[in-house]
This record gives sequence, structure tokens and C-alpha cells, in this order.
Amino acid sequence: MRRTIDWADGAIVIIDQTALPAEFRLLELRTVGELVDAIKRLAVRGAPALGAAGALGVALAARLGGDVRADAELIAHARPTAVNLAWGVGRALAKLDEGEDAVLAEALAVLDEDERLNKTASAHAAEVVLAECPRRPLRLLSHCNAGRLATVGWGSALGVVWHLHERGLVEEVLVDETRPLLQGARLTAWELAQAGVPYRVQPDGAAAAAMARGLVDCVLVGADRIAANGDVANKIGTYGLAIAARHHGVPFVVVAPSSTVDGKLADGAEIVIEERDARELTEYAGVPVTPPDARVFNPAFDVTPHSLVTAVVTEHGRLTP
Amino acid sequence: MRRTIDWADGAIVIIDQTALPAEFRLLELRTVGELVDAIKRLAVRGAPALGAAGALGVALAARLGGDVRADAELIAHARPTAVNLAWGVGRALAKLDEGEDAVLAEALAVLDEDERLNKTASAHAAEVVLAECPRRPLRLLSHCNAGRLATVGWGSALGVVWHLHERGLVEEVLVDETRPLLQGARLTAWELAQAGVPYRVQPDGAAAAAMARGLVDCVLVGADRIAANGDVANKIGTYGLAIAARHHGVPFVVVAPSSTVDGKLADGAEIVIEERDARELTEYAGVPVTPPDARVFNPAFDVTPHSLVTAVVTEHGRLTP
Repeated sequence: MRRTIDWADGAIVIIDQTALPAEFRLLELRTVGELVDAIKRLAVRGAPALGAAGALGVALAARLGGDVRADAELIAHARPTAVNLAWGVGRALAKLDEGEDAVLAEALAVLDEDERLNKTASAHAAEVVLAECPRRPLRLLSHCNAGRLATVGWGSALGVVWHLHERGLVEEVLVDETRPLLQGARLTAWELAQAGVPYRVQPDGAAAAAMARGLVDCVLVGADRIAANGDVANKIGTYGLAIAARHHGVPFVVVAPSSTVDGKLADGAEIVIEERDARELTEYAGVPVTPPDARVFNPAFDVTPHSLVTAVVTEHGRLTP
Repeated sequence: MRRTIDWADGAIVIIDQTALPAEFRLLELRTVGELVDAIKRLAVRGAPALGAAGALGVALAARLGGDVRADAELIAHARPTAVNLAWGVGRALAKLDEGEDAVLAEALAVLDEDERLNKTASAHAAEVVLAECPRRPLRLLSHCNAGRLATVGWGSALGVVWHLHERGLVEEVLVDETRPLLQGARLTAWELAQAGVPYRVQPDGAAAAAMARGLVDCVLVGADRIAANGDVANKIGTYGLAIAARHHGVPFVVVAPSSTVDGKLADGAEIVIEERDARELTEYAGVPVTPPDARVFNPAFDVTPHSLVTAVVTEHGRLTP
């Protein structure tokens, strides 16, 4: 299967996630400016995929010449919340003194690792889910997109679904549409449809009702940044979902490669939360939704305290804060 | 201010809520079929307004002649969850033996009462809010639309905002956009803008994060049906909001005229929940959002148990189950 982000002929090639599910389109990014723009408008998104974008971005900058360290700064700060972006930049930048080929080799190593580590992390998480949830087959609830489109390949939280589906253990995935940008309805649903996994899309507000009806055995989400104590920054709506899961005794499992863990942050209160453009809420497909000049509260992420999380699982297994 | 639904020249005249906020458009409904269609596609919506629609619908049927009782059945079952619809139909139908003028007079009495009772209920609720929430000015959180557009006039939950705003006690209303039909972003925001009350629209998933940041003093919602024990059916997402409010110690106040209370239902488990069309989730403004043939979980309402509700307030004050 094609990687979400890769390197070909001197360019970064990404699956354009703004075009899915209507169109499967590849974008070739040939300048640092094009990459930063693609990151900002979420043509490439998802914490692990942003790690790859950061590393490949430095490789691209090194190939193009110019002020590679300044370019690296630009890339690392294209979005503030996912720690993986700066982490990927740092990985590649550490090889700069060895020349552009060494930088590219390191970036490609980041890509290979990402696929392998997410596969391992999600395999560990699948065992956690099976241990926590007695019912078979499983009804899983997904928020945002933590699938192969959020990573280089395979996926983190959706990677758990792939492992369990291979073993015939998935009855259904309830897919939060995930407002405002509908990554669940657009991307997660697309991945599940491609893989032949039964799913239903629901408004984010229906998740608690689904739990009350007994339709959810486990909630699976990815993460954009994890503090040292296990607090989790993830797509807006994750925190409310975690509160509802706790209220219903539904396990809440976070899956991410360890590059998402930011050991420098003691807890989630220190995580910078990106505020996104008002137009994500005030219009849709170019059609105004709100009165003109409506103000918005549009944080891209929220922070779920570790006390509400059943397990944070990385390639090393359950995270112990 | 123009009523959301009224009677003029032998027709039911409604504000077309599917056109707001882009356009303020009136619809004249001259047949029972037109009324049922307007109810089904939510051109008129909101439990109290549906009560008025039910009563006026019977008056229209009586004026047109034909099988009024059969028409009344059609109207009463146009949507299944709001008890007010059948209640309004019943109120007007009880006068059928006295002739069409008596039916119309009763329907118009329902309209007058609705405005008066919502004003009283929301005045009582404003006192509850002031008693429960020490901070001034208040930051209130609204879900769906329980304003004058959900009633004949004034409003239920938003009616509380009008009372408090008149006294200079409202700092801001956080408006859940309320997927899938965006009644918050489209209708509540429009009403607040018209009234000059500061507001911000947020994705439904941001409500818990707003509470965690200390931005919410009280949650105010309306209701579509209230069981005898105080369980509340309201717009999908209300239940998750109530769980989050409880988690943060934020008061959660339900405001509705007593016609919303269905004394025949012992508890919320008996409330029939309407499932709406998949296209509410699979497309937006005609643009496909999900993969083709995506299945959905799209209940229009959920049930919040009375244990999570600080107070249900009607025109009689706090409801004591």
C-alpha cells in the first residue's frame, strides 16, 4: 500500500488528505514553502506523519541548499502541538554535518521506523484491548484519524483495528465524524471502507449515547503529544470522550509511537494548544454556516488527564509514567 | 418581534429555519401536507414550536374540511420524539365538536400560552442559575437551539439568557454548533447576534475542554420530552455534555414549558428516539463528506438521566419528580 508520505525523485510525495474521500490525489512538494503550506492546511497531518514530514523537510532543504537550519525552524513550527514534527526535524538535522545524503538516509530511516513502530505499538494495544474487553466480536469507537493516513503507514489507533480485524475480532467501528475538519468521516471512514471493516459514522455528540446503549466495548485514539505523566493531547473532543468512557466503564486506550512522548513536559498543562481559523466553523464547502463575523472557540486539540486513560501504548508496550 | 410560527389569512406562517442565517424567509403553509413536510425537514422545529404547529395544524385541517382526525394523526406523528407535537394536536382537537373557529381560538391560545409560559419558565430558571453560579458576569453554554426559534416566541433555555442579559449579567454564551444540522451555529448564533449578546461558536467536541479551562459557569439546554422522573430527551450531544458538566462541577439546567413533560412515561428508557437520514452526516451543502454508501448512527436525540441534571425548570419552577 502506498505510504502517506514518501520521497521520490527529489520531492516529498504525499497523499493529499484535503481531497479525500472524493479524490485520491498525490501532491509533489518541491520546496520548503510548499511543505509548510501543506502542513498548515492539513494536506499532511497526524502526529507520526508530521514526524516524517519534518525529517523529509530537512532532507529537501539540504538538497535545495540555502539556510537549512532556518528552513528547519520554519518546518518545526508549522504547527505547534504535535511534538513529532520538531522531533523529526531534529532527527534529520543531526546528520546535516555529514551531508545531504546522510540527512536523506536518516529521514528515510524515520519513515521505515514509523511504519514498524506503529505496527508494534498497535499490536501491543490490541492485546491490551483483548485483555480489557471481554465481548467478542468487538465494537470499537474511533475519534479523528489515527490510521495509516496519520502515519507513514499502518496507523496507530486504527492499526489496532487492522490487527484485530485480521483475527476476525471486529464487529464494527463507530467513527466520530470529528468536527470541524471531519477527519473521521472523511479519512477514517475511507480507510475502513478500503479495508472492508464494518463501520458507522456518527456525530461526535452521539458517542456518549452510543456508550449508554451498550454499543461500545473500547475507545481507541491516537495522540499528538503525551506528557511525561501520561496526560494526552489529541484532537478536540477526545477529552469529552474520555470522560464519557469513564462514566460508562468503557476502556479508553491511547496508541502512539514513543516519538509522541515529550519527556520534557511534566504534565498536560504545559502543552501548547493550537487555535485554528474561524472559517473551519463559520463556513462549510464555501457556504456560510454562522452569522457574519461570528467569533469562535476552535482549539485543535484538548488534553486528557492520565487518570481518565486506561492505557497509553507505544512500541514499548504500556507506558508507565 | 415576529413569532416563529403564527396564523395569518387562513395559513400557518413560519420562519423558514432551513434558510437561516443566510436568509430570513417566511413560509406560508396552506395544506396539512405542506405542514407535515415543513415539520419533517425541520423548517419548523423545537419542542414548544412543534406544540404550536400541532395545534395550528388541526385548525388548518378544520378550516380545509376533510377528515380532520386523520389529518391530526398525520401531524401528530410527523416526528416521534417531541411530546409537544401530539399535545398541541390534542389541545386543538378537543375543540373540534365546537367548530373550526373554536379550534382556531384554542390553537391561538396555545401560541399565546407558549410565549407566556416560556417567559415564566426561563425567569424561574434565571433565578436557579443565579443561585447555583456565584461568578458575575456569567459564561453560559448552549446546545442546539432552545431560543425563540424553538418556541412561538421568547425561548426556553435561551430565554434565560435574555432575562440575564437584560440585567447585564451575561459575559458570553458558548454556542455548541450542534451537529449534524448545526442548529447552534445557524440559529442560536443568529438569535444571539440579533440580541447583541456576546457569543462564540464551538465544535460540540470542545465543550468539555471549555469547562476544563474554566470558561463555563452553567450549561443551559431545552428539552424535547421529559419523563415523570425527570429524565430528559434533548438534541443528540446533550447527554455527553451533562456527563462533562458533572465531571467539572458545572450546573446543568434544563428549561422547558410543562407541556414537554410526559407524565405517562416513568423514565427516559421509554422515550422513542428518532433516527434521522444518513445524508445529514454523509453530505454537506450537497458535497459528499464520507465514502459512498457509508452507514451512520444518527439519533436525533439522547436521554440524560435526571441524576445528571441540576434542575429541570418549567413555568411552575423546579420540577420535583
